[in-house]
Amino acid sequence: MENIDFSKIKFESGFWKYRYDLNKKVTLKHVYEQFEKSGRFDSLRFRYKEGGSMPHIYHDSDVAKWMEAVAYLIAAEGGYQEEQLVIDSLVIDMEKNQLDNGYLNSYYIQIEPDKIFENRNAHELYCAGHLIEAAIAYDKATGKSKFLKLMLKYVDFIEQAFITEKTAKFSTPGHEEIELALIKLYEHTRDKKYLDMAKFFIDGRGVLEEPWESLSFNLKQIQSEMPVRELILAEGHAVRATYLYTGMAELARKENDKELLDACKRVYEDIVNKKMYVTGGIGSAPSSEGFTVSYDLPNLEGYSESCAAIGFILFAHAMQKNEFSVQYAHLIERIMYNGLLSSTSIDGKAFFYENSLEIHLESIGKETSRLPNKRIHFAKPQRSEVFSCSCCPPNINRIFARLGDLFFLEKENDLVINQFGALTLVNDKIKLKMTTDYPNDGKICIKIADNTYGKIYVRIPEWCDHYSVSVNYNVENGYIVLSNSENLVEIDFKMHPYFVESNPNVRSNAGRVALCYGPTVYCLERIDNHYPLNALSVDVKKEIQVGNVCDYHMRNLVSFGKVDENFNGLYRKAKDSAMETELYFRPYWTFANREKSDMLVWIRKA
Amino acid sequence: MENIDFSKIKFESGFWKYRYDLNKKVTLKHVYEQFEKSGRFDSLRFRYKEGGSMPHIYHDSDVAKWMEAVAYLIAAEGGYQEEQLVIDSLVIDMEKNQLDNGYLNSYYIQIEPDKIFENRNAHELYCAGHLIEAAIAYDKATGKSKFLKLMLKYVDFIEQAFITEKTAKFSTPGHEEIELALIKLYEHTRDKKYLDMAKFFIDGRGVLEEPWESLSFNLKQIQSEMPVRELILAEGHAVRATYLYTGMAELARKENDKELLDACKRVYEDIVNKKMYVTGGIGSAPSSEGFTVSYDLPNLEGYSESCAAIGFILFAHAMQKNEFSVQYAHLIERIMYNGLLSSTSIDGKAFFYENSLEIHLESIGKETSRLPNKRIHFAKPQRSEVFSCSCCPPNINRIFARLGDLFFLEKENDLVINQFGALTLVNDKIKLKMTTDYPNDGKICIKIADNTYGKIYVRIPEWCDHYSVSVNYNVENGYIVLSNSENLVEIDFKMHPYFVESNPNVRSNAGRVALCYGPTVYCLERIDNHYPLNALSVDVKKEIQVGNVCDYHMRNLVSFGKVDENFNGLYRKAKDSAMETELYFRPYWTFANREKSDMLVWIRKA
Repeated sequence: MENIDFSKIKFESGFWKYRYDLNKKVTLKHVYEQFEKSGRFDSLRFRYKEGGSMPHIYHDSDVAKWMEAVAYLIAAEGGYQEEQLVIDSLVIDMEKNQLDNGYLNSYYIQIEPDKIFENRNAHELYCAGHLIEAAIAYDKATGKSKFLKLMLKYVDFIEQAFITEKTAKFSTPGHEEIELALIKLYEHTRDKKYLDMAKFFIDGRGVLEEPWESLSFNLKQIQSEMPVRELILAEGHAVRATYLYTGMAELARKENDKELLDACKRVYEDIVNKKMYVTGGIGSAPSSEGFTVSYDLPNLEGYSESCAAIGFILFAHAMQKNEFSVQYAHLIERIMYNGLLSSTSIDGKAFFYENSLEIHLESIGKETSRLPNKRIHFAKPQRSEVFSCSCCPPNINRIFARLGDLFFLEKENDLVINQFGALTLVNDKIKLKMTTDYPNDGKICIKIADNTYGKIYVRIPEWCDHYSVSVNYNVENGYIVLSNSENLVEIDFKMHPYFVESNPNVRSNAGRVALCYGPTVYCLERIDNHYPLNALSVDVKKEIQVGNVCDYHMRNLVSFGKVDENFNGLYRKAKDSAMETELYFRPYWTFANREKSDMLVWIRKA
Repeated sequence: MENIDFSKIKFESGFWKYRYDLNKKVTLKHVYEQFEKSGRFDSLRFRYKEGGSMPHIYHDSDVAKWMEAVAYLIAAEGGYQEEQLVIDSLVIDMEKNQLDNGYLNSYYIQIEPDKIFENRNAHELYCAGHLIEAAIAYDKATGKSKFLKLMLKYVDFIEQAFITEKTAKFSTPGHEEIELALIKLYEHTRDKKYLDMAKFFIDGRGVLEEPWESLSFNLKQIQSEMPVRELILAEGHAVRATYLYTGMAELARKENDKELLDACKRVYEDIVNKKMYVTGGIGSAPSSEGFTVSYDLPNLEGYSESCAAIGFILFAHAMQKNEFSVQYAHLIERIMYNGLLSSTSIDGKAFFYENSLEIHLESIGKETSRLPNKRIHFAKPQRSEVFSCSCCPPNINRIFARLGDLFFLEKENDLVINQFGALTLVNDKIKLKMTTDYPNDGKICIKIADNTYGKIYVRIPEWCDHYSVSVNYNVENGYIVLSNSENLVEIDFKMHPYFVESNPNVRSNAGRVALCYGPTVYCLERIDNHYPLNALSVDVKKEIQVGNVCDYHMRNLVSFGKVDENFNGLYRKAKDSAMETELYFRPYWTFANREKSDMLVWIRKA
């Protein structure tokens, strides 16, 4: 299965146009400004002078992801002249400062030129990977090839340092990313050398000798405990893991490598069956930003990094290109409407690094009475405009800039519709217009013209129990299958609020449910519910009131439930004294957009 | 109000005789053996040679508490010749090695003689306090006064170093204990100098200048943020706090100091209304061994040190001597039957340092996938015979050795019965015999002869809603009041299982109840209940089956409830699919006496 070029997909109206436009009009500029302020662009301009703002080993990757996002927007729409000037000027600075041997990293060249490729955990290959992705995208979008040429020269040096001459002091990177970038480089150039390099880094992982003493992490943390082909469990840092798995899945597809694909399937199953929040968030341990044991999904003390949600989308997308299974598209929907959206504020200007499923302000306060060096970590209750480690905001820029990627796939000569939005797809095989208020309503109207595809597959959402289709259809592997003669198809995925429960092994969700509507997970905020949120319980048998679509293009919900009676002191004989009350829910992703407040996804059943 | 000499109280049969005898026959010897093995006695024998087992700054206090326990047992029963030989020999070693100026600490004399009284956190005055308590008890019990004389000489030096010449490099101790010991010394000697010294250390706390740089703790952690008379909240290390509060309450009584007593009442109220587990355990933060914010009482990640439960008993006992309020005796009952008992295994040989209200073995396992230096702390799932910091076991020895202390008080010429057990009290004012199967049954039979007390007050337990009394009586402040003419009184505190609920602000207990029977809190162990314990819920409306008294002298209980249906994967639409099941409960304090198992006190309501 193949991607359909995202630049041929235009969001015309509705929810995704609103979020797509917010990214390009607000978030992209805002990240740019924050990165200028924090010296990230200056790092890559090679302007460091002693005493000035210091480049950081992450900076190249931060700027690279922003450039990549710009390139995708140019590819889809043209324009972005101001941003092109910024990038072209950066490329000139990069060209001037690239070492003769091809090495290109703003931190090491300016700060520690004698330490190049010495520290496995110093993110050099990670930064290289992001620069490669940006350079490919910019070359494709603008035809300006200088950036890509610099990167090809750098990749040659990487090949020399790691593969042919082995002068680097480690063998595979501490933070994966270069693997998937090299595969993209192969796709773009068709030069098999880059695919071989990706294979070298993937198959060398956990096999080749590494200087462990340079790492503060254990082997599991960086997916180096065993050869990747032997992986059974998803372990360690969740962003590193999903970037690796994405590279593995892409390599498996290029090489038709069943053994590697099977390893991908095992870790995928481990995540979705044991290690994923209902929002699609992954990596529940703040200490490691990583996976822990099965069913360990704490809500209050969890982590669930925005970049990990993005990495998991990339992995699932790569998996579906290997294997036509609806589960991958279900998962992407789960992340898109919850764990991904929550990363960004409604105004597009602020970001969560962590996406906790519960906020309890008083618990955050308890840190103050603990020893300062032994704090329990709690997610920040509100979004920030920038972080000292600000990987997530430009990652959000780039995933939204090519969001169309996630909506369709080509399956041989058939067209697969995986996600829903008011959009058009116009390429040399079809003119397709989808009209819908999804995710506020499940009615989808598809108009088709000039179609040379064979069958058209339309995903039946995971949440949907009942639907109607206006034409004859079959069902295959979780998809409605339409013949290629249709010009107008109306599908109604009946959308009602419903409650979700967790596997009983998930200790933190015992006796609790999450309220959902279509693909969207809902939450309570204390601002709207004037009690301790854990004193509330919801009556799952009473009807839910569905609100109108409001200013953030979603509906709020109201349920009936109970609130426990307050009393003085700590304990008393149990009474049946809970009082009836209404509970006010809003989409999870919209939480923390007003004043600081408690928030809760998993509500007790009354 | 005054104590009644515990040596006049004999446990004759039933539950408390069983636990009292276990302490004297098994636990005392076992602690002795473990402390010999771990070099604690040798430390105080001043036998350290370079390369040998190293004394530790805690060792004197560990051995002192064991000696104090022996002294109480001698006072009550005579005998203990072997133990007396050990102590007498230790006293000779202490005498030989006490410095000329009176200083006596086995660690500093042997290891860092040039660092005496330099480090506020080095526990020298804490060790001194415990040695003073032991010396007083031994003097009282045996009439052998040498130990006490050594301590009086040491106390003179402490007075010189801290008060008259101020040569010590700090003003008040980092770990409180000396305050209450000095008050006991005043009670024993009637020399007001010791009371003044206690007052110096209490009123100087948070007032006098201290070398903060020598401490790794913050000011709250060691109750030094403000003058103790201004305390409003219970904060910091829970053992230190309760030892301080005990000293404050004792001083308030001696001096009739209302201001100081009011501060004690404020912190007491703060604990019982906001910071105490249902077991009476306190100090919920593992990182600080201390209090955190209000209502922060996590079950799985909690702490609740055994020594803090003991300290809280001492504090409540001291408070009731100030103020005839039934709440203090209620609290002592809560701790006695739960947080105190849980500290020791059924066989009397192993101990919990921490008394968690939930064990979830898989959560402990999750530590392994986190960074090793950033582990979440979980309580050990089983008891240990000794700890590297082994303060709790000998503290258990000494509290059980004078357990009778907690049962009666004298209120002017009246007698107050606070706790229940099959025992006799024979002193120059009364011959009293109490017969009961408490805590397995609420029937109390009291036979009285040769009574010169006025009224007799019998506490109505906090858990008791209905009771009958065989004679005429009044009720006053939560006590049944009997006239002094009674010879035989039968009271039946009707004992049934009941459920307790938490204040709705306690997030960790939301929607949950604890099953209790009389004063005893019950728990589920997974060994008896073959499901994840959080998948179980209890039907609070169904009758509880009460078992027979079993080998650990308590009853087990069986309730009806439900178990959530297991399913593959993590999430599904909520179903009403829980199945009925029986739930097997045992007294909380008996948990972890078989193989490792999950355990849960707060059960979900079905």
